[in-house]
Amino acid sequence: MLSKLKSALIGTPLPTQQLGEKRLNKIRALAAFSPDALSSIAYANQEIYLGLLVAGSAGLGLAWPIGVAITALLAMVALSYFQTIQGYPSGGGSYVVARENLGTLPGLVAAGALLIDYLLTAAVSLTAGVEAIASAFPALYKIRVEIALVLLFLITIANLRGLRETGTLMAIPVYLFLFTYFPMLVYGIIVLFTHGRVPITTVAPSATQPLTLFLILHTFATGCTALTGVEAISNGVPAFKSPESKNAGRTLIVMAILMGILFAGSIGLTQYLGIIAAPHETILSALARRLLGSGLPYVVIQFSTMLILAVAANTSFAGFPRLAAILAQDGYLPRQFTGLGDRLVFANGIISLSVATGILIIIFGGTSHLLIPLFAVGVFLAFTLSQAGMVRHWWRERRKNLQWLPKSIINGIGAMATFATLLIVGISKFREGAWIIVLLIPIFVIAFLRIHQHYQDVGKQLSLKGLPPNLKPLPPLRLVVPVSGVHRGIIEAMDFAQSISKNVTAIYIELEPGAGEKMRKEWNCWWPDIPLVILPSPFRSIIRPLLDYLDEDDRKHNDGTLAAVVLPEFIPARWWQALLHNQTSLLIKTALLYRRRTIGFQRIVIDVPYHLKK
Amino acid sequence: MLSKLKSALIGTPLPTQQLGEKRLNKIRALAAFSPDALSSIAYANQEIYLGLLVAGSAGLGLAWPIGVAITALLAMVALSYFQTIQGYPSGGGSYVVARENLGTLPGLVAAGALLIDYLLTAAVSLTAGVEAIASAFPALYKIRVEIALVLLFLITIANLRGLRETGTLMAIPVYLFLFTYFPMLVYGIIVLFTHGRVPITTVAPSATQPLTLFLILHTFATGCTALTGVEAISNGVPAFKSPESKNAGRTLIVMAILMGILFAGSIGLTQYLGIIAAPHETILSALARRLLGSGLPYVVIQFSTMLILAVAANTSFAGFPRLAAILAQDGYLPRQFTGLGDRLVFANGIISLSVATGILIIIFGGTSHLLIPLFAVGVFLAFTLSQAGMVRHWWRERRKNLQWLPKSIINGIGAMATFATLLIVGISKFREGAWIIVLLIPIFVIAFLRIHQHYQDVGKQLSLKGLPPNLKPLPPLRLVVPVSGVHRGIIEAMDFAQSISKNVTAIYIELEPGAGEKMRKEWNCWWPDIPLVILPSPFRSIIRPLLDYLDEDDRKHNDGTLAAVVLPEFIPARWWQALLHNQTSLLIKTALLYRRRTIGFQRIVIDVPYHLKK
Repeated sequence: MLSKLKSALIGTPLPTQQLGEKRLNKIRALAAFSPDALSSIAYANQEIYLGLLVAGSAGLGLAWPIGVAITALLAMVALSYFQTIQGYPSGGGSYVVARENLGTLPGLVAAGALLIDYLLTAAVSLTAGVEAIASAFPALYKIRVEIALVLLFLITIANLRGLRETGTLMAIPVYLFLFTYFPMLVYGIIVLFTHGRVPITTVAPSATQPLTLFLILHTFATGCTALTGVEAISNGVPAFKSPESKNAGRTLIVMAILMGILFAGSIGLTQYLGIIAAPHETILSALARRLLGSGLPYVVIQFSTMLILAVAANTSFAGFPRLAAILAQDGYLPRQFTGLGDRLVFANGIISLSVATGILIIIFGGTSHLLIPLFAVGVFLAFTLSQAGMVRHWWRERRKNLQWLPKSIINGIGAMATFATLLIVGISKFREGAWIIVLLIPIFVIAFLRIHQHYQDVGKQLSLKGLPPNLKPLPPLRLVVPVSGVHRGIIEAMDFAQSISKNVTAIYIELEPGAGEKMRKEWNCWWPDIPLVILPSPFRSIIRPLLDYLDEDDRKHNDGTLAAVVLPEFIPARWWQALLHNQTSLLIKTALLYRRRTIGFQRIVIDVPYHLKK
Repeated sequence: MLSKLKSALIGTPLPTQQLGEKRLNKIRALAAFSPDALSSIAYANQEIYLGLLVAGSAGLGLAWPIGVAITALLAMVALSYFQTIQGYPSGGGSYVVARENLGTLPGLVAAGALLIDYLLTAAVSLTAGVEAIASAFPALYKIRVEIALVLLFLITIANLRGLRETGTLMAIPVYLFLFTYFPMLVYGIIVLFTHGRVPITTVAPSATQPLTLFLILHTFATGCTALTGVEAISNGVPAFKSPESKNAGRTLIVMAILMGILFAGSIGLTQYLGIIAAPHETILSALARRLLGSGLPYVVIQFSTMLILAVAANTSFAGFPRLAAILAQDGYLPRQFTGLGDRLVFANGIISLSVATGILIIIFGGTSHLLIPLFAVGVFLAFTLSQAGMVRHWWRERRKNLQWLPKSIINGIGAMATFATLLIVGISKFREGAWIIVLLIPIFVIAFLRIHQHYQDVGKQLSLKGLPPNLKPLPPLRLVVPVSGVHRGIIEAMDFAQSISKNVTAIYIELEPGAGEKMRKEWNCWWPDIPLVILPSPFRSIIRPLLDYLDEDDRKHNDGTLAAVVLPEFIPARWWQALLHNQTSLLIKTALLYRRRTIGFQRIVIDVPYHLKK
């Protein structure tokens, strides 16, 4: 029944040989990897507008230059990742680049930053999307956590079904967003040229703060949240149809150009049409209202903004499981993250991300405002490490690649710019929540290293290196059979024990005084040849006297023989019936297998089931 | 570490031989079993007052007659249970009486009603107690669920520590209650005789409803909640010091007399001193305020009311686990309820009650008002069945016992009175929540019967009856060893397999195409004599191909040989490391043991552990 529900939700299992077929073409890949990047203009524009508004018209007059500077930075970052895709076609993005060029520790720092970032992207996008819907329909505000969790569940299921289906589902909001914003921008440019500029000095409120260099830098830094999501494609190269690198690179360039036009275009129109937002309105909404009025076209624009914010969470569901699988492959995360689920996706990564996102949404009460300060530190830390890594990469390739110097300079400028942004974001938002990330990243790195150490230890301990191929046979067996009474459930176990060894002892744990004597009489009728040991248990424990007996017995038989335990276990016909029995066999098995022993071999446990028919 | 925490909370384990010593003397038993009965006057008085108030002075003038009638009913019920204790010294109360005299089904109905009733007593008493505290300190009202859960936790721990300790802990509030209420009642009687009666007609508000027979009966019925808890002692006879019946009977009589005096005394004083409560005050509080003023003595009275309500929950913790153990002994509940914990109490019953009570408190938001309508149906159903059973009991004993006729008449009147109460309570409170209980009791009874059927089936299937004592030896063994690779973890398993059988096959599940060939080369270096079967797994499942192979192999070897599976399993050094491995062995074991097979023997599973050192 459970497996039927599962296959109804996520579809029937796919064979491994279909692995190559479930790749994305460029149209679908753009839809799968770009929503985070495209939707980030919604909050980046807002941050720039609010950052400059306090300095009045002098401030707002800098929106366009700052927008152009961020667009230039976007171009550089995109170019860097374009080069990364060519250099690292197996994916991994910032983690792989930082690790290979800067060393393991910077790589793990980048990986930790990226994992946290994916998680926050999912949580922020979902809550922001729901808040946007709730601004249009205020009745939904009270149940925003529930709506966000339902959306999260739907996105999780879609991703568990497999990438191609996800691409199809996600394509609608992404292309709706593009096909509503671009006509609006073109129309805006026509309006600008036919009606002429509106000087910002005529509409801006008076300044409440002076226009300082710090204010400009701070605005630049917060506006850089427009860049979040640019790295998604470079992590997901293996999801593209072959030739992967080429397709991924082209998709990245298209995405960066779309982002740049949307971002710079909307910033430019806002400034040169002299747009000022009402107190509780976003600047993008004010721009749309100015150009389109408050009718249906405006509502469609707002709705597509909400939708793309909601599906931006999906970028994380494409990126997080992939990065987790790469980390697991390298032994820094539990190996289970490499396992392909029924539908050839990294199901464990998807489920982990979904659970963690749900917890974040519940803890922060579905309020994106509280999550955003945590958000930018990880992005820019990963950017900086990745681009610094690329500088090193070009330096290493200086003999093979004639263009190493200009490429190094581009990446170097990018690295310095993103590092400066990182410092400004980290310092100015430290008390608002960035400290959580500053604390979490070392914890992640330590966990990565502990896990890696464990896998190394296991590998060494399992290695056959140095072991002679002529293996010794095991010593003769002493078998111990714990019995709960004389009944049909123990017959097969006794038969089996006698068939593999002449040295068999039955053990009866006496929980109630006097029960042992009754047991011995019955025993002697059925198995007179097999010795029965009755162990009193004054504290009513079954495990303790048995373990003590086995240890004592080992000490007595210091003759090279090996003790194994034969467990008669009866299995109920239905699962709920297991609740009606004491599960003693399970307890004994667990105790025997997991208990560290100081002398002798480990305990071998032989489980002889007796299935009840009803 | 876990076991240290456990022993700090509930004390060190006690040996079984101390079982007889942990009994209660009468003083402690009164404290352990009476709080429910004594505290119920707090809400019974209130129900009578509110029920009659709507009929003005004509109504309130009937409080004393109704109080006397309920006291008479209390005397009858107590007498019935006194006789029950003599007739059934091993405990079980209504369940045992109904079952032995009326048959299994009425017995199980009574048992279901009692279990639900214990649960509701715990939930109602805790929430009512916390609400009482919160009326005195309104700031606590917002965290009443949390306070109730903390109290529940403390009561649970106290009960897990053992009955004697519980008796000591609970004695303080019970005797505080008695030693504050009795002096107040005596003082009230002195006031009554020195100052004379206050006619109720001079103080009562005017009637809003006519005084109908239904109103009187309804008031009588709701006032009968005063009787809840009377049966507790008869269920708990074995907890008393020897001679159990005599001590239990005397304690019951003392408790009933105390209850009767408290109930009738407070009702009588209320009526003849002409007490009228303020809108948000209980009638008991109004009585106390009239006699004692609003100073310290009044606060002490209120505080002791609260305390006894809080510890009334403890009655359930004495009764529920005992009844569950008796039902489990008879095979109607899971056998685990009969198991004595470390401190010689029925730990599983205590923990189950505690969890269920916690869930009820959370679901009903800590509001006793919502729980009370569910409460009386179970009590009076159990009373009716028990007393009807006693009538039958005397009829059966009519030749041995000369007093059978008067005893039958007493129990018969009691049965009819409680049955009438049951009908009135059930009908008048049906829509307020009594329907839940009407629905739950059949569900409980069906569950009891299903469980009983299962134990009967198991008993028959395990019986050796008819089996010849000369048991056949098992057929020769074929051993199958699933291996995940060539490493140190499989060496002992291979050695063991070879030491008990000449017919050993290794199985490798090929998850990635091509891995099988590599495996075969390595295999042939180490175990050239043992055949290695490579099974492809297109859907990446490990279990499915293995099970299919075993079934197919069984069909091929229809030669009387028996297949067993040897599982190499490596055990990590620390528990958290288990999270880093796939638990394949556990999955295989579960699949092999629990899977029903249509042909051949059940699968024997041989677990050969390899312990990692770090």
